[in-house]
Amino acid sequence: MSNTPSLSQLHQPDAFLARHLGPDAAEQQAMLETLGIANRDELIVQTVPPAIRLNRALDLPVALDEQGALAKLKGYAQKNELWTSLIGTGYYGTLTPAVILRNVLENPGWYTAYTPYQPEIAQGRLESLLNFQQMTIDLTGLDLASASLLDEATAAAEAMALAKRVAKAKSNLFFVDAHCHPQTISVVQTRAEAFGFDVVVDEVDNLGQHTVFGALLQYPDTRGEIRDLRSVIDALHAQQAIACVASDLLALLLLTPPGELGADVVLGSAQRFGVPMGYGGPHAAFFACRDDYKRAMPGRIIGVSKDARGNTALRMALQTREQHIRREKANSNVCTSQVLLANIASLYAVYHGPQGLKRIAQRVHRLTSVLAAGLAAKGLKPVNQHFFDTLTLDVGAQQQTIVERARAARVNLRIVGEDRLGVSLDETTSAETLASLFDILLGAGHGLDVAQLDAGQVADGIPAALQRSSDYLTHPVFNRHQSETEMLRYLRQLEGKDLALNQSMIPLGSCTMKLNATSEMIPITWPEFATLHPFVPREQAEGYRLMIEELESWLCAITGFDAICMQPNSGAQGEYAGLLAIRKYHESRGDAHRNICLIPSSAHGTNPASAIMASMRVVIVECDKGGNVDMEDLKRKAEEAGAQLSCLMITYPSTHGVYEEGIREICEVIHSHGGQVYMDGANLNAQVGLARPADIGADVSHMNLHKTFCIPHGGGGPGMGPIGVKKHLAPFVANHPVIRIEGPNPLNGAVSAAPWGSASILPISWMYIAMMGPQLADATEVAILNANYLAQQLDGAFPVLYRGRNERVAHECILDLRPLKAQTGISEEDVAKRLMDYGFHAPTMSFPVPGTLMVEPTESESKHELDRFIEAMLSIRAEIAKVETGEWPAEDNPLKRSPHTLADVTGLWDRPYQIAEAVTPTEHTRAFKYWPAVNRVDNVYGDRNLFCACVPVDDYRE
Amino acid sequence: MSNTPSLSQLHQPDAFLARHLGPDAAEQQAMLETLGIANRDELIVQTVPPAIRLNRALDLPVALDEQGALAKLKGYAQKNELWTSLIGTGYYGTLTPAVILRNVLENPGWYTAYTPYQPEIAQGRLESLLNFQQMTIDLTGLDLASASLLDEATAAAEAMALAKRVAKAKSNLFFVDAHCHPQTISVVQTRAEAFGFDVVVDEVDNLGQHTVFGALLQYPDTRGEIRDLRSVIDALHAQQAIACVASDLLALLLLTPPGELGADVVLGSAQRFGVPMGYGGPHAAFFACRDDYKRAMPGRIIGVSKDARGNTALRMALQTREQHIRREKANSNVCTSQVLLANIASLYAVYHGPQGLKRIAQRVHRLTSVLAAGLAAKGLKPVNQHFFDTLTLDVGAQQQTIVERARAARVNLRIVGEDRLGVSLDETTSAETLASLFDILLGAGHGLDVAQLDAGQVADGIPAALQRSSDYLTHPVFNRHQSETEMLRYLRQLEGKDLALNQSMIPLGSCTMKLNATSEMIPITWPEFATLHPFVPREQAEGYRLMIEELESWLCAITGFDAICMQPNSGAQGEYAGLLAIRKYHESRGDAHRNICLIPSSAHGTNPASAIMASMRVVIVECDKGGNVDMEDLKRKAEEAGAQLSCLMITYPSTHGVYEEGIREICEVIHSHGGQVYMDGANLNAQVGLARPADIGADVSHMNLHKTFCIPHGGGGPGMGPIGVKKHLAPFVANHPVIRIEGPNPLNGAVSAAPWGSASILPISWMYIAMMGPQLADATEVAILNANYLAQQLDGAFPVLYRGRNERVAHECILDLRPLKAQTGISEEDVAKRLMDYGFHAPTMSFPVPGTLMVEPTESESKHELDRFIEAMLSIRAEIAKVETGEWPAEDNPLKRSPHTLADVTGLWDRPYQIAEAVTPTEHTRAFKYWPAVNRVDNVYGDRNLFCACVPVDDYRE
Repeated sequence: MSNTPSLSQLHQPDAFLARHLGPDAAEQQAMLETLGIANRDELIVQTVPPAIRLNRALDLPVALDEQGALAKLKGYAQKNELWTSLIGTGYYGTLTPAVILRNVLENPGWYTAYTPYQPEIAQGRLESLLNFQQMTIDLTGLDLASASLLDEATAAAEAMALAKRVAKAKSNLFFVDAHCHPQTISVVQTRAEAFGFDVVVDEVDNLGQHTVFGALLQYPDTRGEIRDLRSVIDALHAQQAIACVASDLLALLLLTPPGELGADVVLGSAQRFGVPMGYGGPHAAFFACRDDYKRAMPGRIIGVSKDARGNTALRMALQTREQHIRREKANSNVCTSQVLLANIASLYAVYHGPQGLKRIAQRVHRLTSVLAAGLAAKGLKPVNQHFFDTLTLDVGAQQQTIVERARAARVNLRIVGEDRLGVSLDETTSAETLASLFDILLGAGHGLDVAQLDAGQVADGIPAALQRSSDYLTHPVFNRHQSETEMLRYLRQLEGKDLALNQSMIPLGSCTMKLNATSEMIPITWPEFATLHPFVPREQAEGYRLMIEELESWLCAITGFDAICMQPNSGAQGEYAGLLAIRKYHESRGDAHRNICLIPSSAHGTNPASAIMASMRVVIVECDKGGNVDMEDLKRKAEEAGAQLSCLMITYPSTHGVYEEGIREICEVIHSHGGQVYMDGANLNAQVGLARPADIGADVSHMNLHKTFCIPHGGGGPGMGPIGVKKHLAPFVANHPVIRIEGPNPLNGAVSAAPWGSASILPISWMYIAMMGPQLADATEVAILNANYLAQQLDGAFPVLYRGRNERVAHECILDLRPLKAQTGISEEDVAKRLMDYGFHAPTMSFPVPGTLMVEPTESESKHELDRFIEAMLSIRAEIAKVETGEWPAEDNPLKRSPHTLADVTGLWDRPYQIAEAVTPTEHTRAFKYWPAVNRVDNVYGDRNLFCACVPVDDYRE
Repeated sequence: MSNTPSLSQLHQPDAFLARHLGPDAAEQQAMLETLGIANRDELIVQTVPPAIRLNRALDLPVALDEQGALAKLKGYAQKNELWTSLIGTGYYGTLTPAVILRNVLENPGWYTAYTPYQPEIAQGRLESLLNFQQMTIDLTGLDLASASLLDEATAAAEAMALAKRVAKAKSNLFFVDAHCHPQTISVVQTRAEAFGFDVVVDEVDNLGQHTVFGALLQYPDTRGEIRDLRSVIDALHAQQAIACVASDLLALLLLTPPGELGADVVLGSAQRFGVPMGYGGPHAAFFACRDDYKRAMPGRIIGVSKDARGNTALRMALQTREQHIRREKANSNVCTSQVLLANIASLYAVYHGPQGLKRIAQRVHRLTSVLAAGLAAKGLKPVNQHFFDTLTLDVGAQQQTIVERARAARVNLRIVGEDRLGVSLDETTSAETLASLFDILLGAGHGLDVAQLDAGQVADGIPAALQRSSDYLTHPVFNRHQSETEMLRYLRQLEGKDLALNQSMIPLGSCTMKLNATSEMIPITWPEFATLHPFVPREQAEGYRLMIEELESWLCAITGFDAICMQPNSGAQGEYAGLLAIRKYHESRGDAHRNICLIPSSAHGTNPASAIMASMRVVIVECDKGGNVDMEDLKRKAEEAGAQLSCLMITYPSTHGVYEEGIREICEVIHSHGGQVYMDGANLNAQVGLARPADIGADVSHMNLHKTFCIPHGGGGPGMGPIGVKKHLAPFVANHPVIRIEGPNPLNGAVSAAPWGSASILPISWMYIAMMGPQLADATEVAILNANYLAQQLDGAFPVLYRGRNERVAHECILDLRPLKAQTGISEEDVAKRLMDYGFHAPTMSFPVPGTLMVEPTESESKHELDRFIEAMLSIRAEIAKVETGEWPAEDNPLKRSPHTLADVTGLWDRPYQIAEAVTPTEHTRAFKYWPAVNRVDNVYGDRNLFCACVPVDDYRE
């Protein structure tokens, strides 16, 4: 009889789990032994408070293997129908250059990188983001640009907030052009309502009737009309109001840029620069403003500075503006950007160059002009007098007939009211599509011929006064990578400067840098997911519906919530969306006065910022010495708030990396005062399968799909922050003005541009959960095991600051470097930078406690890699000892001089330590050296001498 | 009216051309000015002999843009039908791990690398190939393995040739087990006929009736039978004959390895280790033998040696065995391997580890056992008594009915004769497929249940005496990369050691390292091309048929030939296949005595080796001082050969990089003596669009699709060498025993295992030609421009050895380093290694002239990159001057010490030159340093101390 095991014995429900986890069974056992524990169960019993334990398996389907999950999802994907979408409204077909698709979007060297907080090991993507800013500056005609915002609609809302901050006008009213995109108007209205601003949506011609602090105009507008905004902007300036213009990068290649028309802020979507529509996102929004407003600018700005050798070095500029520093004073909670997408857009510009881009714009415009000429010949004149790529047609009673013809040709037009249709052309539009459009719009027998029209007299849709005359993209970076070979090497050079998860662990506390498995990433570039317009009729997006609904049901099973709102496209957006739901809930019960938001002092900086955005009053609750919420203070402040208590925002496990024992009691205190509990989901990775936020007492919580659920960080975005809510809050979450979402009240406004936020990356989380199933709990347990192993091995050298029950930490731990600094002058920053010489990304620095490092290994790191990190940290501790004993001078040692670059070792070496000690302190670094591209970056210099555009090439020379 | 150009003006037929070419119009103009020439036309007139000029555009369709070409090819691809193929016969379904798919097969860091002739910058892929050898050694149970051969069938033919070389038996007869795969038998017969060996194909039981020099057995055999080969092998050894065993890696995980049964040679396909079937290839064949035969081993062997610092370093071992050195004495012409595919297979083993692999094998075997048990219960016993994964069933008159049922279920079975069927299961087989198989084989109502059978008593198909007991893959490399994160980082570490086209130009004369565009690569991993079994009914491969026929017609248009044979899967295979066609042609005319092959002394080493394999007598024709064929010598030798003249093999432009003026006359001389002209296609890149081999006088020529037509080199394979022939030779090219090819005589034997060779990479060349169209000529012209620019800029420092008309070179040039070496001791090797410090791959070294470097820039390198190379070469010349003047000692200077590693600069530095001079001699190296992983490798040490398996980990420690 057979020696081989049976099929059932060979079946591996944990086939993917074993790939996702770093340590195998033997490594886990070895770590448990180090901890003096028999098995993982015991560790979890020691660590997680019994009061919150789930004590049963997650109610999820049995895990599929990688092929099985891909096959199932492919089945869903194929239910999406790929029609030609000419809907426009801010989303356009585009061609992602293959060399960028493969070598950036599908390349872990780019997509697994973290936010460039550590600039010395992020010069590649920083350069690419600087190119993005330069491109934005050039095309908008403004002084300064940021490194991207979440989407066009939220960028418009940020523009409004900026206007309010900087305008000298005393008004509380913000004007919105009635011909902005509908989703933009909705998001601005939502945000204004939350802030307490008034908004009027009206024809631009009526602007003179209002006294405002700012206005949002659109150029070209949602109908396709192009209006000379000079006089409108002058009128705004005359009343000391701020002129914000939503625009379109492709159009700006041919149009006089808004900056030259006088605009103060210009924003829009960079989607059509090579980023697939993806059923709504993720895409990068661009944002530019006058230099005067730089300190009020939302989001990240990349700036040029110098490193310790005086060489040019890039880094995030003006970080003191960021909400995590400003906290309660913030009036934006933006703390992320869409790095991966911004980089694709800027690389699209690098690849095409100014001539190539202009040709694309000219072609789109010419196609539109030919379309308009043909229609005009048949008596169908567009509503808009001028146009770039969009025609709005008054078709009267023919609307339904035309839509039927379009449907038969598998073409989506924009349906406007009951008698109009919109047509927007794009880079992918062919002459055949144009011919088909004549048939659709005019019916058979029109006798028009595209080539004939093209050869004849064609009126230009762009008014003479708005023809662009200024140059753009003249910097060499946009003018020498047009051959694929040069482009490929440029991409490789940029990638080679950066440290990402494909080279080493990135042990960032609170950021959960776990495996982004290839099988999770594969579906996002399937055309069925990548190319859908977000406003297609829902029956064409059946595959998305199935995938999203299933993902929602799984997230409910994992968190215990009753409903999910997928719209927030970042964690901070989730907070904001959750607080809005709480606010609306209170209002619905006649409790509009409840506006106090309690926040522990250890909270993420976004928490107070989000509360401010929801017009709440933030009251800080103190923590005790153990890092836990001071229960007495909480009770007192909840009592004081009384009937004004809106909610508590709390992170669990705490930002100190500890399972607070009192969490249930904390929630009960809040509830007893009529408040709601908002649980920050940053640390959800320590709960999945072991505890559920809704069971613990949360009413609403956001889930960082880019942390716990494997969406890669993309070098600093995209994120995705859907919120889970209990039943009573479900009616109050976001809806959408174009595509109605079932569940929430139909009139609720939007918080993001697209109905389901960044829908095209949801397959990543779907795949992860489908392949893990109930074994998600194993991942959580191994994350806890890895963290406790690290804590145990490092505690002797660097004391672990906070611990929970049985002296255990949760999924991360805080190493306290303050005593060492006091003794030796070696700071947490020195250790962070020194880790780069060892080939590591630093842990989270000085959050939540200044002078500390917060380490989160995640479940995906093997014992081998943890040991390599421990070796590095202990070696660094030994180095500190040499400073302590005076063997090395306080200011001239490998720690203070870190990170070291190639320039250090090829120049004159006159230091009191050896080159090998500096750059190859371990066996691993001798075998696989990663070189930081620059020495330690001088942040202060850069902020004092702010420069946020591409550097003249000569400045790079030594 | 419109300012924008019309659609027709905006149309860009050269959209892709501009991406493919390195220099843009301005750069080309600048280079032309340097050459003192007004325009490119003039350069071509100066360079290419008018007698061979085509003087008209290539008859190819108008170029498509990237999206258009992809869409058209996708249309073809979708005509391939993806059925479940259980045909076996050497090809099996497999799952390519996603992390390997994305990060190796789809990653230019791996696929654009060159053959590791320069080991210091190829340690990554060398390590992976060493893993392949270790895996082969472990699984076959033999002493030594090579780094892969082209396919199982040619590996079997190589085994036969090895047997003939090493066997002490005096016989000329080779025995082939009648139950080998049919394509293996055919290729062996073809090769034997060419060599003049006798072959008998018979039952193994009849072996005793023959006196042989060797035998090819198959284990398990093509029926699936597993026979204990010990007694057969003993009998072979008793007559001093060599026992060669074709086997299957997956089966060997469970079977006693042939090495333990006494086999001398074991070979087979590594396809099912993660490499898609791809309609026949490319795949890696494995080849292992006893240590005694190492110097007779065909193909490449990676061996362990030491570098100049005494550290472990890998490189190709025993290169003196290779045909390019042995030339006329060779009896194999193999000079390539399937590096990319061998690496995928070895990485598949690294990823799964021994336990994972065993589980896959056990599962396949268990599925087969359950199938056999079910069928046996219904009275359908397989013909084979034992089995691993394959059952051959005697179904008698039911054959057609069952095949119909299979067709209805979209399942392909193997059809054997008129009454048998074969079923082979694999890694992708599911329990559902098994259930379906019961329905297909037994008809409805059989009542069998897979789970029930699995739970019951299931007989094991592997005989007890052949159950594997020995360990395998115990080396750590196979036991610590099972988590995806660890695997990803291992892949990145290996890639990071290697220099590929994504980092710098690889100016290899004769190797044409041009752009491998992403859009060309995308289709090869489409499932429609990747997963087809080569022996599916042709109607299921309609997409392949359309694509291949179109590609053939295009290649005919480009070369002027009348027919193409796609079967040869390397350039050398093409030579062999072409010479066989010539031989058969002569035979068909009663000229069997024509067996003299004239070969110029400058020829590629494969030429004489191929001629020897075709049993021709090689007569060398001398070259004159200008590097051209000595016309008098040619005439004399042709005359001498007279009626025995078979053919001339000639490369054009010559291997000296010159358009020989006399080529037409040369061809006429040969034809006048009744000979045929074989044109080696290595330099076809200098002809495309300007001249055509068939017009010039060639009767047959191979085309290196991996050179001229953009298939990437893959780090040393796959190649693809189809041949073009004139009408009179067309009947004599290869056919195939399983899938008949229209055109050639049906009884012609095969030269490769699969009917169309490495079919799955043909889309690369299809895409290239589709996107270039008649503009292919522009590429050729720019290649010539680039080469002449380099020659002009470098000539002062390094004299260009050969020139053609008007002192121009063709697409490459030879730099003569012999005078410098005589003066300074600095050799061509020193310059080659020193270029690594500058971040370059060396040009071709000492071919075709010892002491020289042959530089071929290709059209894909920009002027910017050429200038960087020129800068490096001139800087090196200045360094040589310092040796010349005595400023640097003859043996202690950056040239002799090159390449420099990190270990050099972190250790004690006591050299007469600076660290910066050593490792960052240029601005580019300061910004983007590439570090060779080891110092100069000691080849002699490695060959004296041959070690070709994974190194114990401790040996890597310093």
